[in-house]
Amino acid sequence: MEPNHSNNLKVKSIGIDTYRENTIYMRHDCHVCVAEGFTALTRVIVSCGGKQIIATLNVIHNSNLLEHGEAALSMEAMERLNVKEGDFIGVSHLPPVESLRSVRAKLYGQSLEPEAYQDIIRDITDGKYSNIELATFIAACSNDRLKTEEIIYLTKAMIHSGQKLSWPGIVVDKHCVGGLPGNRTTPIVVSIIAAAGLTIPKTSSRAITSPAGTADTVETFTNANLDLIAIRKVVEQEGGCMAWGGAVKLSPADDILISIERSLDLDSPAQLIASVLSKKAAAGSTHVVIDIPVGKSAKVRTMEEAVHVKDLMMSVAAAINMTLDVVFTDGQQPVGRGIGPALEALDIIAVLKGNKEAPIDLRDRSLKLAGRLLEMTGKTSSNGGYQMAFSILEKGEAWKKFQAICQAQGRFTEPTVGQFRYEVISNKDGVVANIDNRKLAKLAKLCGAPHAPGAGILFMSPLYKKISKGDVLLILFAQSKGELEYAKEYLKSSPETILQIV
Amino acid sequence: MEPNHSNNLKVKSIGIDTYRENTIYMRHDCHVCVAEGFTALTRVIVSCGGKQIIATLNVIHNSNLLEHGEAALSMEAMERLNVKEGDFIGVSHLPPVESLRSVRAKLYGQSLEPEAYQDIIRDITDGKYSNIELATFIAACSNDRLKTEEIIYLTKAMIHSGQKLSWPGIVVDKHCVGGLPGNRTTPIVVSIIAAAGLTIPKTSSRAITSPAGTADTVETFTNANLDLIAIRKVVEQEGGCMAWGGAVKLSPADDILISIERSLDLDSPAQLIASVLSKKAAAGSTHVVIDIPVGKSAKVRTMEEAVHVKDLMMSVAAAINMTLDVVFTDGQQPVGRGIGPALEALDIIAVLKGNKEAPIDLRDRSLKLAGRLLEMTGKTSSNGGYQMAFSILEKGEAWKKFQAICQAQGRFTEPTVGQFRYEVISNKDGVVANIDNRKLAKLAKLCGAPHAPGAGILFMSPLYKKISKGDVLLILFAQSKGELEYAKEYLKSSPETILQIV
Repeated sequence: MEPNHSNNLKVKSIGIDTYRENTIYMRHDCHVCVAEGFTALTRVIVSCGGKQIIATLNVIHNSNLLEHGEAALSMEAMERLNVKEGDFIGVSHLPPVESLRSVRAKLYGQSLEPEAYQDIIRDITDGKYSNIELATFIAACSNDRLKTEEIIYLTKAMIHSGQKLSWPGIVVDKHCVGGLPGNRTTPIVVSIIAAAGLTIPKTSSRAITSPAGTADTVETFTNANLDLIAIRKVVEQEGGCMAWGGAVKLSPADDILISIERSLDLDSPAQLIASVLSKKAAAGSTHVVIDIPVGKSAKVRTMEEAVHVKDLMMSVAAAINMTLDVVFTDGQQPVGRGIGPALEALDIIAVLKGNKEAPIDLRDRSLKLAGRLLEMTGKTSSNGGYQMAFSILEKGEAWKKFQAICQAQGRFTEPTVGQFRYEVISNKDGVVANIDNRKLAKLAKLCGAPHAPGAGILFMSPLYKKISKGDVLLILFAQSKGELEYAKEYLKSSPETILQIV
Repeated sequence: MEPNHSNNLKVKSIGIDTYRENTIYMRHDCHVCVAEGFTALTRVIVSCGGKQIIATLNVIHNSNLLEHGEAALSMEAMERLNVKEGDFIGVSHLPPVESLRSVRAKLYGQSLEPEAYQDIIRDITDGKYSNIELATFIAACSNDRLKTEEIIYLTKAMIHSGQKLSWPGIVVDKHCVGGLPGNRTTPIVVSIIAAAGLTIPKTSSRAITSPAGTADTVETFTNANLDLIAIRKVVEQEGGCMAWGGAVKLSPADDILISIERSLDLDSPAQLIASVLSKKAAAGSTHVVIDIPVGKSAKVRTMEEAVHVKDLMMSVAAAINMTLDVVFTDGQQPVGRGIGPALEALDIIAVLKGNKEAPIDLRDRSLKLAGRLLEMTGKTSSNGGYQMAFSILEKGEAWKKFQAICQAQGRFTEPTVGQFRYEVISNKDGVVANIDNRKLAKLAKLCGAPHAPGAGILFMSPLYKKISKGDVLLILFAQSKGELEYAKEYLKSSPETILQIV
């Protein structure tokens, strides 16, 4: 705004998309670089009209990309700082980020106080952590390195890092700990619960390490990207919604951490619990049911680990005044037939419509979770939840409510799958003896899921099914030929380890 | 090389310096992006004429930066792939990096086998790890999470990751574990040892978390960037050298890990030991002395920790057939008066010349280490080392040898300090009661050290010195005004915690 200030530079738009990490491009002989002693990868504060962001510096040499007095910003950085070409920005050193001292202390095995977690989460929310610093914090919290009290501190810090919603009366919610391809019960549970007259303002995340998150799946049939005003309107009108949580800035630190966890293919109990419960608490939920699938290739592998996570969750929920129940479900194989956003959406719609060929396992799990919520909230006796949910589904009330919610969110579209397909054929007779869910998920990701919503797998070979030579075991779907080839190559390198037929 | 191949693109040079992480810039509507399903931050293989590198993708939108069929590479990526503007490159998916599975297992507390460390170090050397993956591996190895056998596996994997030197007969070396500003004994020890007729092909690193590494200091008076042929020539002629280790690709994985450790300000005993001993073993050293300064703000804070590191080091050294000795030294305060590359070089030269005002502590430490090496190698009796080293220094033989080595390395230049200065004056009478070496190091880094070689601190207030109001405690030096201001600001925010006068 003050072109004469010595640290001010004129913005040039060069259209580079660096995704989450803000980047600023400056000439190596720029007067600000020289005066401030900036070199490549220096972390700097970029400011304009009272707003500021933190960015990583890339230096430009021997190039006509920038004139003297100009600097460029990556696209997201321009958006976050709300500047356009020709605006003036100030650039200065990033002061030392004091909370990193606590991250190092944690890595060295110390326990941290509530204030330390508040400082860390505030600095993460403010974008002060570089990607490698975020990775270090995630590693420091992995594998039970946080005591129960520390998980409570972390959860509370995350709740208060963003917006908080409040609703009149009872507000219910559900969450699945994940790790099981195709386990897409949320839209079915929301439809049943809202049809029963309860309030369920459901927000979901995109995939972390899986081929589809609920928000990815929802986007194949309606808009998930709702702001707070839109969510309120949909929930007031229909009692429930199916929105992407990131758009409403509930627990924003969590979204930043999740983006790094995704790259690392890494989860930790502490981050998991803080992530789930902070989102629920910030959304104003009072009664929550958690689905933990247990199986040797699910996220939670043993019953012992499941009980451990449940105990931690119950302690944290009690500390934040939330009524919680945890349900363990079978985690040995995929749920339904679709793996990938659009393919999973087709399963959901089949269940809601009551189609004869709808996956029985997906329906059963959805009824169990909806039933438990109906019991917890006193809508029915302590044993009548499943029956009540079943009846709402059978009468078509859930399907009607689903369509109404979709329309309230802006549209209902039939999901479409990728045009490139490949059938995986069995080369022998036998019985399906073992399924590696992690490798199956990886295969779906190699097909392009979740960034290509029509990509994924149609899974046609559940455990103990009798297989004849020539039967179709899986159908791969992709939206680009390159990705289909890539998935086929992975399949070739380890077919027996994904799906074992004996 | 085959412009018609569908995944080939023409290189355009746009001069962006992203430092270590290779970056490729492609149009969002580029046929390769679309066909392969690439999005921002996808990790890809870029190949040309049999060579290949791994790069992170930045996508270009709505910009005239690139024509159709063009792609740009960051400057270091162009250099590593050895391409110039107009060359054709191929771009394809990076297959999953299998060794990351072991990194996750380590983070979850498992012990790893030798093969796992070999695979991890090979993939790191090949550039397959992104920065956040490197940060995760470093975190997974921190705080004694590696058993002694695992440190041995890691060390051996690092030794074999790069070039190995061999020399006839006894080859001696020294190393300081660091954490103590100004502890720059290496050039003095090398000069004494080479003058005594022993072989000391010394390679040093640049700063990890300190304001100056030995290589940074050496560069202020001679060339440190020697290749293998140059090192051999200098050592054959003079018996010793003072070279930067990174240029000769000894333990190259270590250089990559160090660059991330530096950003994180993080060390771990396992990485420390593997880093030090792999470099020494790859350099062909047979007799090594390690200096561990112990003090509450040095890298090793307590005698207990020092003994622990020593025990681990002795075990690893035995496993790789190296004769090792560890010396504990006082780590309460800076050594010498200079902190920063050029300022430390001036202390070294004063000691070698035998100037009256040369720092006594720096001379004493150098004589102790050189003496121990003279004893270990049988050059003198088990008690006569200090005396022999003292005599070599006193007679001017070390100064003569130092100058000869510098000339053999290409030049001797008088080091020069930064033009921007600021004197820190005491505002009271008293005695220096406490010095925080970490904060002092941070202050020197804020002045611009080590990237600005003339930046740093002249330290004039050692422990227990009597101070009068108005005395100069420190002089700050910087090469840019911005950095000097920044250091002054930090000083203002916490003067008493850096230097306590009571």
